[in-house]
Amino acid sequence: VTVEPRVDLITLGVPDLAEARRFYVEGLGWPALLDLGDFVVIQVGHGRALGLFGAEALEADIGAPPPDGAPGLGVTLAQVVESEPAVTAVVEAARAAGARVLKEPQRAFWGGFHGYFADPFGFRWEIAHNASWRVDGEGRVSLGSGE
Amino acid sequence: VTVEPRVDLITLGVPDLAEARRFYVEGLGWPALLDLGDFVVIQVGHGRALGLFGAEALEADIGAPPPDGAPGLGVTLAQVVESEPAVTAVVEAARAAGARVLKEPQRAFWGGFHGYFADPFGFRWEIAHNASWRVDGEGRVSLGSGE
Repeated sequence: VTVEPRVDLITLGVPDLAEARRFYVEGLGWPALLDLGDFVVIQVGHGRALGLFGAEALEADIGAPPPDGAPGLGVTLAQVVESEPAVTAVVEAARAAGARVLKEPQRAFWGGFHGYFADPFGFRWEIAHNASWRVDGEGRVSLGSGE
Repeated sequence: VTVEPRVDLITLGVPDLAEARRFYVEGLGWPALLDLGDFVVIQVGHGRALGLFGAEALEADIGAPPPDGAPGLGVTLAQVVESEPAVTAVVEAARAAGARVLKEPQRAFWGGFHGYFADPFGFRWEIAHNASWRVDGEGRVSLGSGE
């Protein structure tokens, strides 16, 4: 197993989700693909999405705060993989390549399965399985039940 | 003119480019689409790329340091647009939506044309025209002369 060169979701941990929604959804006019109240997802190109998530909730989800002065605070880059075992295998492959695992693969609060690792500088990556993430042939992302 | 919901390039400002190359290119085995010595570009999905750039060079390129404690230090999200006037128009549209312009549209050191703005929290976005950026029908990105 290798770690594919792929970023599917960029998450910004924002101090104020209402303000983030005001800027990105209302101000820039970017339609929300999903708005769960505390998590907004916007499609930002073929097969890729931008997530807006509360900054504290994002850090709590990772569970291991970055060292003082680490770059990329408030940002995670995520890769969606096809199964729970794939999450574990990809996180192991990243560890073998020198990544520091911040969250061992486990059930996520949103029902999926995921793990986090940091690159040598502290930039955080999430490897996740989300059964409701779909990308069609045109690159349209869908998320959530019934889709 | 509106700002399209699109992220084409994620740039990480890394403290040590040799170490970044060791982790991403050698460790994870992600092929470099372009390696200019001080800037490495890796394709990370359909029509999208990850850039590794020296942290200081990235901040110098933006030219306006983020306020202390601003999130997203060392990260920029970039959108490639089709022309120089489009850079100016998109930056103006972002400003109208409440973005703080950090670098007015101007010639970039690498020969293109670009501007930077910050969202309300300080996350930085670059709007750039790069005549050598190409995405083919399969989503393959190419960069650089002769391609």
